Amino acid sequence: MAELYLEDFSVGQRFISATHQIDADQIKAFAARFDPQPFHTDEAAAQAGFFRGLAASGWHTASITMSLLVRSGMPIAGGLIGAGGEISWPRPTRPGDVLQVESEVLAVTPSRSRPERGMITVKSETKNQNGEIVQILTSRMLVWRKP
Amino acid sequence: MAELYLEDFSVGQRFISATHQIDADQIKAFAARFDPQPFHTDEAAAQAGFFRGLAASGWHTASITMSLLVRSGMPIAGGLIGAGGEISWPRPTRPGDVLQVESEVLAVTPSRSRPERGMITVKSETKNQNGEIVQILTSRMLVWRKP
Repeated sequence: MAELYLEDFSVGQRFISATHQIDADQIKAFAARFDPQPFHTDEAAAQAGFFRGLAASGWHTASITMSLLVRSGMPIAGGLIGAGGEISWPRPTRPGDVLQVESEVLAVTPSRSRPERGMITVKSETKNQNGEIVQILTSRMLVWRKP
Repeated sequence: MAELYLEDFSVGQRFISATHQIDADQIKAFAARFDPQPFHTDEAAAQAGFFRGLAASGWHTASITMSLLVRSGMPIAGGLIGAGGEISWPRPTRPGDVLQVESEVLAVTPSRSRPERGMITVKSETKNQNGEIVQILTSRMLVWRKP
């Protein structure tokens, strides 16, 4: 896919990523390092707890989402450089889920002070194989004007 | 540290985590998996690019922040279950940075419909060894009333 510059983006534009299947081993390995809580690391404890079964760390879902965006979801020239955004997890990511990211451009904002750049605001919904949304990320990303 | 329930939280309460030192190997390993872009994976390419040197993925900073909160930063009874929030990265996390999370309770909100639970809103600033803020996360977390 061609790399996109500020001029190439428009409100309403949509992008769909490739998919990634998550499994219990990935969930536990990520959690052991970054989110060591029983509902992310142990099936039996998870079954008895709030999530009623093993659930991925929200930060794991976020990281997989980034991976999908970088590899296939959003071809920004010069790379995906995020300034920040809003994130929510309406439902847990489960072992076996096949995740895919659907992104929509909400705003395109040229920089007032720096003519060579701008920002885009992108809403990225991460869905599982049933089309259920496991994460909504609205992020502001740096984009460059064509050189 | 004692585990805290809804009744134990109050606006303005502060928590400080332990520290975690990040290095180039951690940055590259995380990025190879979740954010494979040259400014996160390759020193020379990073030096020539936007960040002027190797920088951690923002999602890596977020994941380390979660790790610090879970292990030492915020002792919520029943665990840290986030519904979402706002995140920003005012400056990059660099190899050698020693990260620490300072959290402040912004709001304590009992549930109207479910008397056994509530939400707290927490602002967590992740700082490096120079006191510079590398991430601001304002998150909504589930808390339980005392049984």
